[in-house]
Amino acid sequence: MNIVISGLGIIGGSFARALKKYTDHYIIGINRSPGPLEEALSCGAIDEIGNETSISNADMIILGTFPEAAVNFVEKHASLIPEGCIVIDSAGIKTEICPALTGLAKKYGFQFVGVHPMAGKEQNGFAASDADLFCGASCIIIPGDAETESVETVATLAEKIGFGRIVFSTPEEHDRMIAFTSQLPHVIACAYVMSPVCKKHKGFSAGSYRDVSRVAHINEKLWAELFIENKKPLIDEIDIMTENLIRIKDAIEKGDRSELEALLAKSRIIKEELGE
Amino acid sequence: MNIVISGLGIIGGSFARALKKYTDHYIIGINRSPGPLEEALSCGAIDEIGNETSISNADMIILGTFPEAAVNFVEKHASLIPEGCIVIDSAGIKTEICPALTGLAKKYGFQFVGVHPMAGKEQNGFAASDADLFCGASCIIIPGDAETESVETVATLAEKIGFGRIVFSTPEEHDRMIAFTSQLPHVIACAYVMSPVCKKHKGFSAGSYRDVSRVAHINEKLWAELFIENKKPLIDEIDIMTENLIRIKDAIEKGDRSELEALLAKSRIIKEELGE
Repeated sequence: MNIVISGLGIIGGSFARALKKYTDHYIIGINRSPGPLEEALSCGAIDEIGNETSISNADMIILGTFPEAAVNFVEKHASLIPEGCIVIDSAGIKTEICPALTGLAKKYGFQFVGVHPMAGKEQNGFAASDADLFCGASCIIIPGDAETESVETVATLAEKIGFGRIVFSTPEEHDRMIAFTSQLPHVIACAYVMSPVCKKHKGFSAGSYRDVSRVAHINEKLWAELFIENKKPLIDEIDIMTENLIRIKDAIEKGDRSELEALLAKSRIIKEELGE
Repeated sequence: MNIVISGLGIIGGSFARALKKYTDHYIIGINRSPGPLEEALSCGAIDEIGNETSISNADMIILGTFPEAAVNFVEKHASLIPEGCIVIDSAGIKTEICPALTGLAKKYGFQFVGVHPMAGKEQNGFAASDADLFCGASCIIIPGDAETESVETVATLAEKIGFGRIVFSTPEEHDRMIAFTSQLPHVIACAYVMSPVCKKHKGFSAGSYRDVSRVAHINEKLWAELFIENKKPLIDEIDIMTENLIRIKDAIEKGDRSELEALLAKSRIIKEELGE
């Protein structure tokens, strides 16, 4: 296949590297700024720097940009995308993105399959991309209205480039789950490091500090967009989190050891039942 | 030295194993239940199962039990502890513990040095102990009223058994910092997994979920005691955390992207300034 990747950040760049490492497809890169394109070309992560003609000849287009930019890219180039070409995104939210891209797919005759690779790092940009970023990770696929054959092509490709698990979902289920599994931990990490005590933590901290604060090293432009585009499920999760913090706090404040033990035991049992 | 370790859980057990691995001291174990003692003896983590005579001959006593039990142990055996013997605890809170033990030390003529080894696992008990649990970890020492020589003996021993950093502190500073670096992450993890969505997370989660939820696999009896004994600083930190969560939530709710980006950037900069 001729695969065009739009946006060579950490995710697009990792798709390029993984496709070159694990498949024989021909990889074409498109990016707003020239730096990552030249880097990707010189290290062999792409075969060619693309243009509008590349889009007309694409069998697959991978959107590696932020959600809004991904929709804008497809809107702008929709008339160039060949019939039957499979377009996949990589956005961390789906309810705002998938219907728009499914609509464009219907109108222009290409196939759109929603994809969320559950992998990342604290670093960003092409420099942080990695051919094995997806190894063992979960790949969430939102088939939407795409033909079964296209969905299967995407799933097969995902397995080939290292994903360890393929999960099929709907935009709504995806966004509800991601609000909890990914967005809330980022909100928690940012809120956590805002404590005035944080700056003096060294020597007094170990794994617990490290783990909860890790993703506070955040790309604020990307995550502000993701948070606002997933407002309702995320706010629900922040509310649940805040209520649970207050329940634990109340038990501490009352000095009610048996109530506090019962609350903490509930959490331990949830983890144990999950086998974690 | 004859070193008596009271309480062969993960911490006491790891002290025993590390002392046997890295020093030539003679290690004597005392434990409420016989199981861990027999296990420790058969695997060579202790040289002998101790009794009251062992306490009378001890050069050092390491308290590996929960905070309250540690104070009770010393109260019960104080008259047996030889003059000059160094007693160290390993409790995760100090303001409630150190003054009581310092008082007993003065009254009975032994030396008390507060110690908090900043290391642990989600597993508990002697079975989870490890000769290298402390490798590279921070050892917080609360000298209190102990003689300089005794404090130096403790610091030297800590370095010998693998600690990577010795930090001297006061009970109050220790408890304020630990409320943030260790207790709050445990409260957060427990509150987090209480979301009704948690049980369905598999396939939708990656490193962020794993890291923030890790310590929800909690020993509820130990942590309920630690939380209540450090009530004031911990409640302060929970309040700050809740306020910061609500600040982020408000920016999301308003859909104010620039305010949200500014808030998240603040967190990113805190992490960057810490070199993390």
